Amino acid sequence: MRVSGLGEHGLIRQIKRLSLPVSSHSLIGIGDDAAVLRISPHALLLASSDMLLEGVHFDLSYTDFYSLGWKSAAVNLSDIAAMGGAPRFCLTSLGIPAAVTAEQIRDFYRGFRALLRIHKTDLVGGDSCSSRAGMVVDVTALGEARRGRVVSRAGARPGDRIYVTGTLGDSAAGMAVLRTGNAGGGSGEKKLIRKHLRPAPRVAEGAALARSGCASAMIDISDGLSSDLARVCEQSGVGAVMAEEKVPLSPALLRAAVRLKKPSFHFALSGGEDYELLFTVPPAKVKQLKSLGISASEIGEITGGRGLFLIDRHGRIKPLRPSGYDHFA
Amino acid sequence: MRVSGLGEHGLIRQIKRLSLPVSSHSLIGIGDDAAVLRISPHALLLASSDMLLEGVHFDLSYTDFYSLGWKSAAVNLSDIAAMGGAPRFCLTSLGIPAAVTAEQIRDFYRGFRALLRIHKTDLVGGDSCSSRAGMVVDVTALGEARRGRVVSRAGARPGDRIYVTGTLGDSAAGMAVLRTGNAGGGSGEKKLIRKHLRPAPRVAEGAALARSGCASAMIDISDGLSSDLARVCEQSGVGAVMAEEKVPLSPALLRAAVRLKKPSFHFALSGGEDYELLFTVPPAKVKQLKSLGISASEIGEITGGRGLFLIDRHGRIKPLRPSGYDHFA
Repeated sequence: MRVSGLGEHGLIRQIKRLSLPVSSHSLIGIGDDAAVLRISPHALLLASSDMLLEGVHFDLSYTDFYSLGWKSAAVNLSDIAAMGGAPRFCLTSLGIPAAVTAEQIRDFYRGFRALLRIHKTDLVGGDSCSSRAGMVVDVTALGEARRGRVVSRAGARPGDRIYVTGTLGDSAAGMAVLRTGNAGGGSGEKKLIRKHLRPAPRVAEGAALARSGCASAMIDISDGLSSDLARVCEQSGVGAVMAEEKVPLSPALLRAAVRLKKPSFHFALSGGEDYELLFTVPPAKVKQLKSLGISASEIGEITGGRGLFLIDRHGRIKPLRPSGYDHFA
Repeated sequence: MRVSGLGEHGLIRQIKRLSLPVSSHSLIGIGDDAAVLRISPHALLLASSDMLLEGVHFDLSYTDFYSLGWKSAAVNLSDIAAMGGAPRFCLTSLGIPAAVTAEQIRDFYRGFRALLRIHKTDLVGGDSCSSRAGMVVDVTALGEARRGRVVSRAGARPGDRIYVTGTLGDSAAGMAVLRTGNAGGGSGEKKLIRKHLRPAPRVAEGAALARSGCASAMIDISDGLSSDLARVCEQSGVGAVMAEEKVPLSPALLRAAVRLKKPSFHFALSGGEDYELLFTVPPAKVKQLKSLGISASEIGEITGGRGLFLIDRHGRIKPLRPSGYDHFA
């Protein structure tokens, strides 16, 4: 069914049905002028928005609407995770072209809700309108954090160790596989594709790092390791040195890179959309970090000088330029 | 300058410069993964999003970027006002086509900030990305309200009087004037155009109504009187009867309607984008309402039957169908 068959009102009703509150924080959710949300006393509210545009952020020729909904939620919850917060609420604004069907919109919200359910987060509002030019998605995530337990990008100090969760470059390699049109590869390539289409935000890890006080600075890797590390360094007023051989790459990425005839490290450094966490840890807290049981790899160290450097596989030090995605470059 | 000359990073820095906090609630604003906002104890957080798409919601051939910024903020603050809340924070997501200049984006944020300043609201975050198809704006507004003092759409009861603030139809008439391409009309038409391009959300009125406890239900008129009244009735499980001659029309609208050769009442009923408040008041509280000093007109009454009816200028009762803008109809 075309969305025009539902009408705006029917569409909102459908979204409302798919967005029944899962927490007791939403006093008024979708269907009023604004959501009314209960925030516990002495807690901080976190808020973040991320926009996804057809033809820029996603390609509907290989992205199903369930995955689009999932990912739209994931990229936003990842921002809350990167502050050490607990996601609580989301708002979604959709611009919907005439060719999109009501079933596709339902699938979008099913995917969106599936991720929200995992993280006990409510969809509490938003907007929907017709679009003349491509599908438009904008999501705002609201989260909660304890005072004194928020991890910003600005707290990295010289000597702090640099860590990343999981493995890097998988999402970018998954997208490259999808773009070859040959997505029938082995289970390794399926994993890469899944990481691209349905990333898992590191909510539990972000919260554990904030709670423990181990992390001095934190960011989620959305644009690529080099660009996101550069952001932490700029906002902390520090530099960094990173070792190529320490950057965690998955076996699936290594195999796919061979088939795609591209250097595997390039995907990690410049690819983006991994939604892993990059965080820094003061030397005195490294032991405590290990007791948290978080799967993370040390990849380098924060320096007092402002530059960013990479030690390559041959032991040579090279300047590291932010090479991640820039929308306007 | 093209936005590409600034780069994404430069753009964010520009937005950050234009978004210095005006309140002491923003502990961390633009530039981190998420905004960190202090919410007073025992207060409720309100959250609302509205998307504006080029070619659907606005036409850049007659909309300047300052007005676009102003209006993007206004439509969102109006949603907070319609709950009786005080706006506190906004997040803006922009999708920016290659042809848009950095100066235009600066003007957008200047207009946005000008309205936010009036209402002591901080711009605390958002997203910006390149768009391949038209300018995309999505704003989330967060506000605060006291417990027990939020006015939803669901509280109207039979016998309640129906009120609207200001005059209706001005914005739609202003757009019609702009579309004729002959915007050089008299001061009356300039007022209509201003109401369309730079609407003033009724924040003080919404808050006063909520504080006083006079309003049993409230909504802002964004899609047109008939559609928005129908929403209040549906969510309250009631009906309404409204008198055409009581609906407040401005002298400027009456004159413009003659020149545009359209019935003046049509603009009020179906036009939308007035961002006036429609609210209901129990009979016992009408006297108290008058003491609030709000400029509002009584236009009808809530009924127990589910239908919506209009008494026209000849005293005939007719069914009233929601005729406001529907994005997908």
